Amino acid sequence: MNIAVLGYGGVSKAFIELISSKEDYLKREKISIQINYILNSKGGVYDPKGIDYNNLLNFTSNKGNLIDYPHGGSSNLTFNEILNDKNIDILIELTPTNKDTGEPAFTHMKSALENKIHVITGNKGPILLNYNELNNIAIKNNVQLAIGCTTGGALPSINGGLFDMAGADITSIEGVLNGTTNFILKEMEDTSCTYDEALKTAQRLGIAEANPSLDVDGWDTATKLLILTNVLMKENKTLNDTKVHGISHITPNHILEAQKENKKYKLIGRTTKENNVVSTSVGLKLLESTHPLYNVDGKNKGLRYTSSTLGDLTLIGGASGVTPAAASIFRDLININNGYKFSK
Amino acid sequence: MNIAVLGYGGVSKAFIELISSKEDYLKREKISIQINYILNSKGGVYDPKGIDYNNLLNFTSNKGNLIDYPHGGSSNLTFNEILNDKNIDILIELTPTNKDTGEPAFTHMKSALENKIHVITGNKGPILLNYNELNNIAIKNNVQLAIGCTTGGALPSINGGLFDMAGADITSIEGVLNGTTNFILKEMEDTSCTYDEALKTAQRLGIAEANPSLDVDGWDTATKLLILTNVLMKENKTLNDTKVHGISHITPNHILEAQKENKKYKLIGRTTKENNVVSTSVGLKLLESTHPLYNVDGKNKGLRYTSSTLGDLTLIGGASGVTPAAASIFRDLININNGYKFSK
Repeated sequence: MNIAVLGYGGVSKAFIELISSKEDYLKREKISIQINYILNSKGGVYDPKGIDYNNLLNFTSNKGNLIDYPHGGSSNLTFNEILNDKNIDILIELTPTNKDTGEPAFTHMKSALENKIHVITGNKGPILLNYNELNNIAIKNNVQLAIGCTTGGALPSINGGLFDMAGADITSIEGVLNGTTNFILKEMEDTSCTYDEALKTAQRLGIAEANPSLDVDGWDTATKLLILTNVLMKENKTLNDTKVHGISHITPNHILEAQKENKKYKLIGRTTKENNVVSTSVGLKLLESTHPLYNVDGKNKGLRYTSSTLGDLTLIGGASGVTPAAASIFRDLININNGYKFSK
Repeated sequence: MNIAVLGYGGVSKAFIELISSKEDYLKREKISIQINYILNSKGGVYDPKGIDYNNLLNFTSNKGNLIDYPHGGSSNLTFNEILNDKNIDILIELTPTNKDTGEPAFTHMKSALENKIHVITGNKGPILLNYNELNNIAIKNNVQLAIGCTTGGALPSINGGLFDMAGADITSIEGVLNGTTNFILKEMEDTSCTYDEALKTAQRLGIAEANPSLDVDGWDTATKLLILTNVLMKENKTLNDTKVHGISHITPNHILEAQKENKKYKLIGRTTKENNVVSTSVGLKLLESTHPLYNVDGKNKGLRYTSSTLGDLTLIGGASGVTPAAASIFRDLININNGYKFSK
């Protein structure tokens, strides 16, 4: 399979490192992969024989720009070269996300799918805004749109819903979907500190961003929950349909009272389907110690699906970071190679 | 897809009921399924246009024998009719299991795969004894051997390992894989009763069998663990390679001491891979309250995989019973229809 990578940030670099380390695995599984294009907004690298991963990573880690790379770097390379190249099987879309317009990723994905190129992405914006439209284009062109990385990285959230629950109707989704807020809550439990102190610790450790609103106000959780809901329940829900509350109002006293009863606060995204009415919400919930998500602590994530005929399924895992995110992209790649139908 | 079902016990009946209830689902997903053969050791039913599920279930629930069913019942039907019928796509093998020889299920599966018929089974004996041989025949004939139901019914154990961990090497497997022993341990925790009393309760409720050795001595756990190990780590381990201990020596005092420290005993099947040496064992382990399998209580099951690049994945679910087992068979059926490659 010939691959084009769009975007050259942390996840892209981790993905290229991962592929490079998987040489034995790929040989053993008889899977042949090469990357022919890596593009960012300035241009990129093209090698029809497959880019030398380690050589490129060495070059750019020494502050070389992609366009100056001596083996195929150029400022003239654009996305259109990929579309016009009949040898590309898979586009990996990892450009910076835009949650208002979804662009430019939306156009990249749409054009690739229309050109019968599979798309794998970790780009939440266009998937939240336009999953159904993109998926229909994939179906029409008999290619796959794989988005596992948008809803929890290494946690097999989409996989779990699509394939582990195959043949059953999912009737509810409940998840601890954001590692940053989960870390802050654990920090408050462990050290009895205030929310502001825990947030500062998370920021110092690089877990929370300088502007933490996306995480702590529940928007990241809501985005992941909505993508899961729309993909797995074939819905068309938006942020406007969702009650979203964050964690910034929680006090040490709340935590203390919960601990006295052996309970824990978690930021839970929850979708329920009752009498065919689907409702989505995000907010703090107090979990009993017997709840399957009770032990999902720190940067880990967890999900519980309930279904008509396969009962409950709880999935726990998926630590944060670029390496697990890259492994999630690689998982989608292997599964597409093995004949999975994500788009149907 | 045209299906032949071998065996007409509890799981087969639950499977036929399930398919009958899934008419809307199958229409919505544009999947066309019919059952053409249902055979047991006395003969069976054949209908080239598809057996009428409800009609047949009504007939046999009123104590009618398959061979007397007025629409295609016959004592002359044998497995060879299925092999000679060029219209059968999938064999569902649910005859009584034999853990010493694997027969007759092994021969059924082998012949079907050689005739380019996909096989789905919940039959542990032949899969424990001969998975690799059967899987190689499936690969050679470009058909699938799906065995999800042999390792925990509705719990997506094989799915989780094959597809949710795709692209990563599994480095350990740890599971609560037997509902009966897990129920007995919970009963002892809840009521402070002895092991013998808890076993009697389980027997009265139909959870444990009159001869409970298979469950309580750890053999069922070992069988599931070995199948998972052989499939997911491409090993050839047998019961002889495995230290197997059961739960019958546990006392109320053990339980009490554990509870004082907020710990729980679980019967754990564990496979580890260190320096390329794979070890398998089954026995009681004392789990801390932070362990992801700590809350897997009662008849539920749970598994934790660790991997090279996708981190840990814990799967919890899969209550016991014929209906979840049938839903697991149905899941494999849908995934084969959707292009999954179980055999590769």
